[in-house]
Amino acid sequence: MPITHRIYNFAAGPAVLPMPVLEEIQRDLVALPGVGMSILEISHRSKTLESIIEQAEADIRSLAHIPDNYRVLFLQGGASLQFSMVPMNLLDAAAVADYIDAGSWAEKAVDEARKVGRVHLAASTKAEHYARIPEPHEMTFTPGAAYVHMTSNNTIEGTQYRRLPDVGDVPLVSDTSSDMFSRPLDISRHALIYAGAQKNMGPAGVTLVIIRDDLVRASSLRTSALPTMMSYAVHAQHRSLYNTPPAFAVYALGLVMKWLLAQGGLAGIADVNERKAATLYAEIDRTGFYRGTAAVADRSLMNVTFRLPTEELEKRFLGEAAKAGIDGLKGHRLIGGMRASIYNAFPEEGVGALAGFMREFERQHG
Amino acid sequence: MPITHRIYNFAAGPAVLPMPVLEEIQRDLVALPGVGMSILEISHRSKTLESIIEQAEADIRSLAHIPDNYRVLFLQGGASLQFSMVPMNLLDAAAVADYIDAGSWAEKAVDEARKVGRVHLAASTKAEHYARIPEPHEMTFTPGAAYVHMTSNNTIEGTQYRRLPDVGDVPLVSDTSSDMFSRPLDISRHALIYAGAQKNMGPAGVTLVIIRDDLVRASSLRTSALPTMMSYAVHAQHRSLYNTPPAFAVYALGLVMKWLLAQGGLAGIADVNERKAATLYAEIDRTGFYRGTAAVADRSLMNVTFRLPTEELEKRFLGEAAKAGIDGLKGHRLIGGMRASIYNAFPEEGVGALAGFMREFERQHG
Repeated sequence: MPITHRIYNFAAGPAVLPMPVLEEIQRDLVALPGVGMSILEISHRSKTLESIIEQAEADIRSLAHIPDNYRVLFLQGGASLQFSMVPMNLLDAAAVADYIDAGSWAEKAVDEARKVGRVHLAASTKAEHYARIPEPHEMTFTPGAAYVHMTSNNTIEGTQYRRLPDVGDVPLVSDTSSDMFSRPLDISRHALIYAGAQKNMGPAGVTLVIIRDDLVRASSLRTSALPTMMSYAVHAQHRSLYNTPPAFAVYALGLVMKWLLAQGGLAGIADVNERKAATLYAEIDRTGFYRGTAAVADRSLMNVTFRLPTEELEKRFLGEAAKAGIDGLKGHRLIGGMRASIYNAFPEEGVGALAGFMREFERQHG
Repeated sequence: MPITHRIYNFAAGPAVLPMPVLEEIQRDLVALPGVGMSILEISHRSKTLESIIEQAEADIRSLAHIPDNYRVLFLQGGASLQFSMVPMNLLDAAAVADYIDAGSWAEKAVDEARKVGRVHLAASTKAEHYARIPEPHEMTFTPGAAYVHMTSNNTIEGTQYRRLPDVGDVPLVSDTSSDMFSRPLDISRHALIYAGAQKNMGPAGVTLVIIRDDLVRASSLRTSALPTMMSYAVHAQHRSLYNTPPAFAVYALGLVMKWLLAQGGLAGIADVNERKAATLYAEIDRTGFYRGTAAVADRSLMNVTFRLPTEELEKRFLGEAAKAGIDGLKGHRLIGGMRASIYNAFPEEGVGALAGFMREFERQHG
């Protein structure tokens, strides 16, 4: 297959966007229809930008059935800044926060929380290189904890929660950066979810936070001691317009939300995502040539990680894939091998192309 | 004048971008030449994005003659997050920071610094509604202060420093959000400058920080106690790639830097900016109909603020201007009246159009 105008981009994020979204952005780039200015130029105090933000929020509420007692915020700084904002807003000196340590990003969240207050590891699979999600019976929660923090999909290790931990009345906080809106979401079981946009929702530069009103109230009690920009209550009060928002990224995210609705919403995209992942895992499991690195029961539908028999073959695989227009497969250095990231917008024909390439590579080198 | 495809956008920021930059972004939006992916999709660990960031930095260094002992960082959160990052990184418990309080944004910086440590107001023109910049003899600096903070251009009040305060060996920190790269910059007199991109440099979503190495070292001593994302040392060490950067905004900023170089650099754009401002101030001063709100000696070349004889006429002025394709003139509510923001990319013909409109409006209503 020759390299065409567009190549298949399996990168772990920033990642591929839907072509109709890219084409709409391109068409309207110089001047939004009826506005006479570019989305890159309009004032954040204009009705145009206000309505773009309101529409993105409305589409998110519709897509994920977000009830009225949750705020939808568009922030900056990515999940990495949320690692600090969550404990700074929600963890006071008298309390403890429980963290489920099931991946490299979960561990980073722990590190930041420890700078702020007391942390209890409810469970950890670090000793097993995070190759699996802890079982429910392995999790020990603190009664009255400030919150429980989890990472719904582990981008680096290629694992994903199939069911949410049972945390009772304790607020569940979830970093969903790598599987947000990839499947139906039971928001009522969460108190706060956050995600950088750049995997499933849009370009890098905006972070989506969905937060329940009682946590906003808790944040408001701490706001006077926090950097104003780090307060959920401030951003909620100002509807993400406390300061200049990343307007373009919110606009692009809004277009992706419309595209998701047109795909049949979260149930519709989940079907596609399951089919894409099944195709690749079937290829991995077909013979012993490829070897999945994640526990089978916890395999991610977003990041498919696998190794080849030797590192020499892995290098060759990457090189030949690139020549075939298949890019971004190199796994994270912590795991090695391959990682095929197949987020919402990754096209099914690209998954087919990779499966075919894998089969042909195995035929030649197996 | 009928409303054409593009209107004249005098908004205070986000603000107008150069048309050739918008056209290049549009042309390459779906696939960067030779890359086969959109700038909105490429991995932040790719050579492509690395080279885009390196090129933007190189062009900034060339444009503003930034020497090797300064780091150039592309961050998120706007000037508002810098209001906190500056004291969190540079102001320890034993020290005091001096702030020159010469505008509404300067005051916001003071408020955030006071959450972190001890602040001394070196001077304030608040009692005069910030209509002027303090004179050098009015400024009282603390010997051995951690730093002196100033705001080089006051977007809301329309004033601008003509010369830098003499702070001796104390590090000078300047919020240059609304006049960055609008005129030659003597970086050697600053220890740290920061600016949101969305007025003179690009779209909203990226914050430029230029910081001297000794301040990076000071930051590194505090990093273990700071949210990692708030540490200058971390971002400097990772060359703005500690986490996923706002790739598109950096890319667009880079294109604006190339455009600035093609305008003759900072000296070239300063000539244009002076001419544009002179045209509007001449119109304001021609008769008594319009009245500038800023002290004449401190008038900003970026934000031209003025009032009309009555609020009734101001409303009419705004309405008729909008019909003539002249947008964004409404002044900040703290000052009222009009504000014409004429940043780097604002076209000279648009300034001519406003001057002509002002003259005609005065003829009809004066």
